[in-house]
Amino acid sequence: MTSAVNPDLERERKRATFNGEILTDFIYGGAHKKQRRRDIQNAVFSDPEYQTLKPWAFCSREDLYSNHLQKANMARRLQETLNITDQEEGFIIRQSLCSNEYFGLGVHGFMFIPTIQKLGTEDQKRKWLPLAKTLKVVGTYAQTELGHGTFLRGLETTATYDPETQEFVLNSPTITSMKYWPANLGKTVNCCVVMAKLVTQGKSHGIHSFVVSLRDLETHKTLPGIEVGDIGPKFGFNENDNGYLRFHHVRIPRDHMLMRYAKVAEDGTFTSATNEGTILTYGTMLFVRAMIVTGTSSTLAMACTIATRYAAVRRQTEVKPGGPEAQIMDYQTQQYKLFPLIATTYAFRFTGQRINDHYTTINSNIEKGNLENLPELHALTAGLKAFCTAVAADGVEVCRLACGGHGYSHASGLPKIYTSATVECTYEGENTVMYLQTARYLVKCYNMMKAKKTLPPTFSYITDKLSGKSDLDSKLNFNSIIEAYEHRAARLVKAAALNISFWMKAGKNPWESTNKSSIQLVWAAKACCHLFVVKTFINQVTSIDIDPNVKSALTVLCRLYAVNGMIENMGQFSLDGFLNETQINMLTRKLSDLLEEVRVNAVTLVDAFEFSDNELDSCLGRYDGQVYEALYKYAKSSPLNDTDVHSSFQKYLALLKYQGSKL
Amino acid sequence: MTSAVNPDLERERKRATFNGEILTDFIYGGAHKKQRRRDIQNAVFSDPEYQTLKPWAFCSREDLYSNHLQKANMARRLQETLNITDQEEGFIIRQSLCSNEYFGLGVHGFMFIPTIQKLGTEDQKRKWLPLAKTLKVVGTYAQTELGHGTFLRGLETTATYDPETQEFVLNSPTITSMKYWPANLGKTVNCCVVMAKLVTQGKSHGIHSFVVSLRDLETHKTLPGIEVGDIGPKFGFNENDNGYLRFHHVRIPRDHMLMRYAKVAEDGTFTSATNEGTILTYGTMLFVRAMIVTGTSSTLAMACTIATRYAAVRRQTEVKPGGPEAQIMDYQTQQYKLFPLIATTYAFRFTGQRINDHYTTINSNIEKGNLENLPELHALTAGLKAFCTAVAADGVEVCRLACGGHGYSHASGLPKIYTSATVECTYEGENTVMYLQTARYLVKCYNMMKAKKTLPPTFSYITDKLSGKSDLDSKLNFNSIIEAYEHRAARLVKAAALNISFWMKAGKNPWESTNKSSIQLVWAAKACCHLFVVKTFINQVTSIDIDPNVKSALTVLCRLYAVNGMIENMGQFSLDGFLNETQINMLTRKLSDLLEEVRVNAVTLVDAFEFSDNELDSCLGRYDGQVYEALYKYAKSSPLNDTDVHSSFQKYLALLKYQGSKL
Repeated sequence: MTSAVNPDLERERKRATFNGEILTDFIYGGAHKKQRRRDIQNAVFSDPEYQTLKPWAFCSREDLYSNHLQKANMARRLQETLNITDQEEGFIIRQSLCSNEYFGLGVHGFMFIPTIQKLGTEDQKRKWLPLAKTLKVVGTYAQTELGHGTFLRGLETTATYDPETQEFVLNSPTITSMKYWPANLGKTVNCCVVMAKLVTQGKSHGIHSFVVSLRDLETHKTLPGIEVGDIGPKFGFNENDNGYLRFHHVRIPRDHMLMRYAKVAEDGTFTSATNEGTILTYGTMLFVRAMIVTGTSSTLAMACTIATRYAAVRRQTEVKPGGPEAQIMDYQTQQYKLFPLIATTYAFRFTGQRINDHYTTINSNIEKGNLENLPELHALTAGLKAFCTAVAADGVEVCRLACGGHGYSHASGLPKIYTSATVECTYEGENTVMYLQTARYLVKCYNMMKAKKTLPPTFSYITDKLSGKSDLDSKLNFNSIIEAYEHRAARLVKAAALNISFWMKAGKNPWESTNKSSIQLVWAAKACCHLFVVKTFINQVTSIDIDPNVKSALTVLCRLYAVNGMIENMGQFSLDGFLNETQINMLTRKLSDLLEEVRVNAVTLVDAFEFSDNELDSCLGRYDGQVYEALYKYAKSSPLNDTDVHSSFQKYLALLKYQGSKL
Repeated sequence: MTSAVNPDLERERKRATFNGEILTDFIYGGAHKKQRRRDIQNAVFSDPEYQTLKPWAFCSREDLYSNHLQKANMARRLQETLNITDQEEGFIIRQSLCSNEYFGLGVHGFMFIPTIQKLGTEDQKRKWLPLAKTLKVVGTYAQTELGHGTFLRGLETTATYDPETQEFVLNSPTITSMKYWPANLGKTVNCCVVMAKLVTQGKSHGIHSFVVSLRDLETHKTLPGIEVGDIGPKFGFNENDNGYLRFHHVRIPRDHMLMRYAKVAEDGTFTSATNEGTILTYGTMLFVRAMIVTGTSSTLAMACTIATRYAAVRRQTEVKPGGPEAQIMDYQTQQYKLFPLIATTYAFRFTGQRINDHYTTINSNIEKGNLENLPELHALTAGLKAFCTAVAADGVEVCRLACGGHGYSHASGLPKIYTSATVECTYEGENTVMYLQTARYLVKCYNMMKAKKTLPPTFSYITDKLSGKSDLDSKLNFNSIIEAYEHRAARLVKAAALNISFWMKAGKNPWESTNKSSIQLVWAAKACCHLFVVKTFINQVTSIDIDPNVKSALTVLCRLYAVNGMIENMGQFSLDGFLNETQINMLTRKLSDLLEEVRVNAVTLVDAFEFSDNELDSCLGRYDGQVYEALYKYAKSSPLNDTDVHSSFQKYLALLKYQGSKL
């Protein structure tokens, strides 16, 4: 393999108008953290065991499952060897080992342990946490059932208290009640927090949490009454043994119900919980969603890195007869595919940071019992989770398709990124459900506004006075841009709210009226999220204290993000004349100009994320741009090439040949 | 497995306002053909060998490759046993065996043989065709190179004539010149038509076709100088051994150049081809693109069948406290995802039929040497190929995501449909390149219009007089709809054409001027294709002679397709005021009404395609709606469940446990 960098890519790097290192420092929170990240990654990638791992694309499902446990082991070992205690640094190890893969036992650390910490009594924590932290007990969190997803009250698994023996009897009364999907449930965990419907003294008391042993701690064999297994191959994340679980009248001791809040006494008397439990659970949910938003930036940035570097080295079609073929990045259509997505990676990065900050503040208020801002944060994170995951997943596919035929090969790394990105549209709250939750809150705000109540700051732009005209001109003043996005969002909230009222007045019940408005509610929620992202991006690039060349490059990206969003949704911005035809035409020209402005910095803007070749795992996205040699090497390594004549030849092909055919 | 049909699904079928059988007859070209399709499928699915095939989702790459040859064998056998000679009926066998998979040796029949037929001399045909038809020789078609896709003149493989030995020397001078991607090239074929740059008497004469042997006809071993292999795992179609091929100075006899048109004499004298060869090649390309368009309808219809049936049986969230959970199909957001796509399947089916008819007419003209309509058909098929494949692939993902978490499992069948749909956006002409080809022709039409020349009928709406207002009202008159789509298309063509002129006047060269307008050119091409589909759909439902209830259901679908398209692109319809705010708001209400009108027939509209459960290979899309039992069965069959305790336990998990962890 040539070690030199492809000259096309080298030239791109030299052309940049700013120093990429400064941007990298900014992305990773300073020069020191950047260096730590590099050092840790180098330690991982130079580890002898790492070198022996079979390439992902050539792994069977068995290999993937086995590797993911091996990697969990390696992570533990490396963390020890490198003496890493910081959580963020531990995360770098996992990210390096398991880029776009499920990290083995992740659910144990992220869900099983925290649930016990949050919902367990002091006694229960003393019992379970040491076992969990030393991995004697390895657990998962089982909520979703085969027939039940988002709607918690629909869960069917029962936990019926038997005062005679002081036990709960866990049961799966129907096929739809079996737990389905929990991570690592199939083959890996020996324990589980189960969400089940509590029944005691003949009455049902809603959904509560129970710790249930599934496998023998020593032999790992399934315990009596437990039917558990892997749910089979999926679009992606095949290293994860997402599982199913049926209970056949399984008895657990009374103190396996997590009883920090709700309680069942020895005689079966139920004591209701305060709402604290729910609120704490909310906290975890908000935290996970905030984390997902930040994650979408990295995922999309990986795809952009691959597609942008490839667009610099791939050449196609001579510009002048007999002349050299053009870099595909010089085609406006290619720029239009990639550059708004590069802008989006930065937009989402800033958005993730901002809601994380938001979360930290509000969470400390929650812990103090101040719940005032919870609904606002909940509405915001629900919608942003949907908005960012959907845009990122679609964006990854745009990147993949922008790589032409080679984008379809696993050699590109892009299909793997897509399958790991798209699942985020579904888990932790299905996106349409998320938008509708946000929208419900927006309509509430609209009604508060009508009642002249003060609106929460994030949504203070909601109004029914929408008669103005935009003063947006070719200077692309940021305030005018924000005003246009606010106008669009407010208009769509108003339209959805009025539609609900219309149906209510027409005699429909609230469910029907809302349902008949839900297309418009989703539009409103999207517009509000989009506005939040645009505003955050603008605030960030105008307030940031950084090298002026970097600032200027980010400002161009920010303008591109905002302008592209207005073009993509031009109807929503212009329908009532707030933006007029002349302004939209001006934006179309500006879009073309901005793409040319980004062109010179495109490679450096993706380089700044400093994804290692190992993380990208892509022949097309290599730092050195030697894509063709890498593709050739990938092809030669294909297991089908282990023999010159494949074993199927004698079995089928020779048969076909000698029999002739009417094909 | 329960044999009864899920009552929710049964009720949906009973509710339909028309007889689905009539629609099925229509789709498959009459009651007789429908019955033949059923009979052939039954014969395939009841075949004992068919029953032994390993389920697709549980296959390794090796299994997939081997199975695809086995299936080719089975197809041959079944075709013989069932005494099938009709090509269309042969296709039903393959479709039944290889739903959404590559059909083994497909490229041999579709590309290798036809190329020899079209470009070979009589002598060459006498030599190769009997060998090819009896499968002594199995071939593929090698055009694309590692570094070269769409741009034919960029191909680097050389065929240099040596008059001394009267041979051509085939060579791959660079790494980028190796052939890459041809179907079945890696392990299966023993022969190949190679597109290579002809060099004779020291001069290069462009790209020509050569028949090259790759493997020994008896032993199947690679011949000297040939380096050939599989290119490795891909996003989908892993049963196909797409291959790479390098020539190391491989000599072939002079008469292995296909010489019906261009010729090289014994002394190396080159005789140029008339343009007939190119035209015939064009013919194949147009035929393939027309076939792709028709195919998008089936692919999308499969995804719609799965998602729609699932939406009828899946229930989520009680509508009234304590009441039953609603069928998810009753949610407007779900209807908005699925029903416009159901409409699209019908729209694309009619579109495919129409361009096939168009192709047949024009092709017979071409054979007679009348090339008048070729550019029009070429522009049309290029754009429609891009439009239909992109919409279908996106639509399949919408269906998959509409099935929530279970859509992510291979049990849903949807990931497989997606990976087979999305590749069509790239092969046989990358979509953006296709749109730009169409757009170039549209601009040509615009200039013809300016020069007062007659426009080809398909594009006669192109004009620069665009001052009117639409009279569209809530009656949704079809003529007003067509007029609105024509106005939008004409406006976008005009805008793109003017933008090119603007840059030309500003001193840019034609390439730059076109490149700087290419975003707008793509918009124009999409709008023209969209219009063609809408118009075709409207013409079909207004002229069709069929049972009035069926006609009425199709008419609702047609309106939904048109209205949804206007809403999705409202900016393009309303920016210049052709449609005004009131009209757009009316369309938004109509969208909601039309979704409710489709609701009652949704299941029957997808049932009418009569995809068998075997073709769909989906737990969610089963005809009987017993989705949960099927998912449970799928899970239990997962190979990871072959043992209770997985072999990785001792190797990694036990290790982790006993060492404890800082995870």
